[in-house]
Amino acid sequence: MAAASSITIRRARREDVGIIVRMLADDPLGGARERLEHPLPPSYVQAFERVDRDPNIRLVVAEDGDGAVIGCLQLCILPGISSQGASRGLIEDVRVATHCRSHGIGERLVRWAIAEAEANGCKLVELLTHHTRVDAQRFYVRLGFQPSHVGMTLRF
Amino acid sequence: MAAASSITIRRARREDVGIIVRMLADDPLGGARERLEHPLPPSYVQAFERVDRDPNIRLVVAEDGDGAVIGCLQLCILPGISSQGASRGLIEDVRVATHCRSHGIGERLVRWAIAEAEANGCKLVELLTHHTRVDAQRFYVRLGFQPSHVGMTLRF
Repeated sequence: MAAASSITIRRARREDVGIIVRMLADDPLGGARERLEHPLPPSYVQAFERVDRDPNIRLVVAEDGDGAVIGCLQLCILPGISSQGASRGLIEDVRVATHCRSHGIGERLVRWAIAEAEANGCKLVELLTHHTRVDAQRFYVRLGFQPSHVGMTLRF
Repeated sequence: MAAASSITIRRARREDVGIIVRMLADDPLGGARERLEHPLPPSYVQAFERVDRDPNIRLVVAEDGDGAVIGCLQLCILPGISSQGASRGLIEDVRVATHCRSHGIGERLVRWAIAEAEANGCKLVELLTHHTRVDAQRFYVRLGFQPSHVGMTLRF
């Protein structure tokens, strides 16, 4: 079992896409949205290429001491006019592998994203979490977030 | 008074930054965050430059039949792995000038953003709206959004 102290956070590589998709799918909401096939549908690798070449996006993974990928997070640094022209950090797709939960790995990932956003001039970090994920909401409040907004979504 | 039918939506230009900041500041929440000075603090124009050169961001304004800027909206097209590698559209900083509200201009802006997101391969459009903005929430529900998420924010 990975301890948070032995975790490395590094930029995701193309060969991580399969395990990232497995983590996204291993979830009541994500399970209905992803396609866990072998080989992976090419849309995933194409999306990885778009993410990887976007200078404003950091897709990172958490790796345990044995080099196994056990978590992921995407941070977008978004310039904008409001708040005196401060950039915003948007956190998305935070996942920790089921067998590694409750060991501080999600906290390591989110604290990394907060620090990275601040180092890139952000004055605000924001995220949407599904209203049914009450544990996630408690987790984010503990890390200093406020449930200040309603997150509205429109799916095509 | 501008009717929604006479509105043009176009990409924002550098000379629009002042009026955009005035619209952002003309709001109970935005008023505390912006600095309405003449000349404008340079951070606003610097932010505009970052927005303008980012290929994934569209900052647009609504212009009435006389060429006056009476609304704005920022759309970010965000690639990501989840949902089978579908991009997401993030709508931010939607504002309509006080004297032009309730005339369908916000709806024109948001419908533009939804169409633009869909045309760019997005399967989802998302936004955060402050929990006190109940009129805004009703407006977005009317346009097809669901209040499915909690929007969490952390300000530095």
